[in-house]
Amino acid sequence: MEEMQKNLLSEVSGLHGIPVGAYNIRVDGQALSMNSTANIEIVKKKDKSGIDIYIKPNTKNESLHIPVILTQTGLKEVVYNDFHIGENSDVTIIAGCGIHNSGDKESEHDGIHSFFIGKNAKVKYVEKHYGEGDGKGQRILNPVTIVEIDENGYMEMDTVQIKGVDSTKRITKAKLNEGAKIVVKEKIMTHRNQFAETGFEVELNGDNSSAHVTSRSVAKDNSNQVFLADIKGNAKCTGHSECDAIIMDNATVKAIPQILANNVNANLIHEAAIGKIAGEQLTKLMTLGLTEKEAEEWIVNGFLK
Amino acid sequence: MEEMQKNLLSEVSGLHGIPVGAYNIRVDGQALSMNSTANIEIVKKKDKSGIDIYIKPNTKNESLHIPVILTQTGLKEVVYNDFHIGENSDVTIIAGCGIHNSGDKESEHDGIHSFFIGKNAKVKYVEKHYGEGDGKGQRILNPVTIVEIDENGYMEMDTVQIKGVDSTKRITKAKLNEGAKIVVKEKIMTHRNQFAETGFEVELNGDNSSAHVTSRSVAKDNSNQVFLADIKGNAKCTGHSECDAIIMDNATVKAIPQILANNVNANLIHEAAIGKIAGEQLTKLMTLGLTEKEAEEWIVNGFLK
Repeated sequence: MEEMQKNLLSEVSGLHGIPVGAYNIRVDGQALSMNSTANIEIVKKKDKSGIDIYIKPNTKNESLHIPVILTQTGLKEVVYNDFHIGENSDVTIIAGCGIHNSGDKESEHDGIHSFFIGKNAKVKYVEKHYGEGDGKGQRILNPVTIVEIDENGYMEMDTVQIKGVDSTKRITKAKLNEGAKIVVKEKIMTHRNQFAETGFEVELNGDNSSAHVTSRSVAKDNSNQVFLADIKGNAKCTGHSECDAIIMDNATVKAIPQILANNVNANLIHEAAIGKIAGEQLTKLMTLGLTEKEAEEWIVNGFLK
Repeated sequence: MEEMQKNLLSEVSGLHGIPVGAYNIRVDGQALSMNSTANIEIVKKKDKSGIDIYIKPNTKNESLHIPVILTQTGLKEVVYNDFHIGENSDVTIIAGCGIHNSGDKESEHDGIHSFFIGKNAKVKYVEKHYGEGDGKGQRILNPVTIVEIDENGYMEMDTVQIKGVDSTKRITKAKLNEGAKIVVKEKIMTHRNQFAETGFEVELNGDNSSAHVTSRSVAKDNSNQVFLADIKGNAKCTGHSECDAIIMDNATVKAIPQILANNVNANLIHEAAIGKIAGEQLTKLMTLGLTEKEAEEWIVNGFLK
């Protein structure tokens, strides 16, 4: 691996070498290195790009790393990863994609991830998207995440995209059975002419299921963001979506969070707020000696932490 | 006027006779009685059903009543009323429509109201919709309200529809110039198989303009409700929409409040919550001697007050 590739890998997955446990490292359209463990089996798909991951029931405190990096300008790929999470397991999955584009052509990775989360299983899914490179070619990431959670299963999804992605359309769809729960935390920052759209569709189909979606975003320069959330309460359930956006410069942000109560015992809430950094916050930091630029940066970093 | 018509008139406008000031009382597709005053001129439209209302600049503390009642089954009408509100005036306009349908055919009134609110003018607009009658014919009301508010103008819009309307599609569109302000308060209750959709589109085009939209609704039995709000911040402005819904029985409620910040100085917030009456609230009232039904009614009435 070249130095630049190592840096990308570290940016998106925090890895500085080969990880412990199961992993599949994908570099420029090829599996560079793959490792299954006794409880986590990774199988390359035969009909298309991607892998099947089988996690045995009762697998506890194990992790799976599946970072993807693209360094060739003009490379476009769609990759299908299916996660079969056995009952009663408790695992952490670290995905992520980094694109280094120093050429003039578009580089694009679309990861289509499907999760089948068994009864009482618990999954923490972490995904970081990042772009860099001084080429004029766009860096594009369009992840699709499809989730089905069986009885009393749980998924936490932490996604971060704060630098270098020119265009992204993120779609997450989840269906929850009885007692299942999903918690989504999203952080997005866009610069220059970047575009980010993020959409969540959650169907709360089982009694005592719940969804909690939080999105924090910062839109700078001439960038545009769209936030969509659609929570359907079809049973005795709790749904909450929340979108907080800081708008700067000439950026625009649109929020459309929809809730639908189809059941008298559905309890649904959504909130959204878009605004610039409060003047008094800036003034306060500037009296402490920071420049306006530094103060803004300080506030934005705190907001996205 | 028959007794039944008098009752309808009182339901929708609070009137027990001919009002003070300017008025136009419309009964079964005809102007029953009309009165202009020195400052408020009412002119019948020549090309279509409806009236033009001209309110002179500086008209203060005057009122205009324009109730509509329908008592013939099968009567359907579209009526266009244009309100030209002069600069610096301060007026109250009481509209409202009551339908008594004791037959088998649909009765429908669609009031298309356009407001041109002059600089510094202040308008309070009150609208109550009501239906009754034991016929199988539907009672339908589809009001459209188009508002343009000039510099520093103000409009308060209070709308109520809590009984007897089988189907309604309410559309309100407002464009606000510098310093203009709109405050909307909506109350809706639906029963049986009733349907209510309500949509607000507000464009905050001028600096220091603001919009505040509040909707409170109760959906009972098998009724369905949809709440749409779309606030666009195109200048230094403040926008807030809020939808609170109580859901009961087999009713469904959908809320889609969209906000779009096109300007870094736009400050936009929306909130929506859908849920049933809290169990502990009911229990508390029942320990005071109310039946469950009475306790529910008490809470719903308080919520819509």
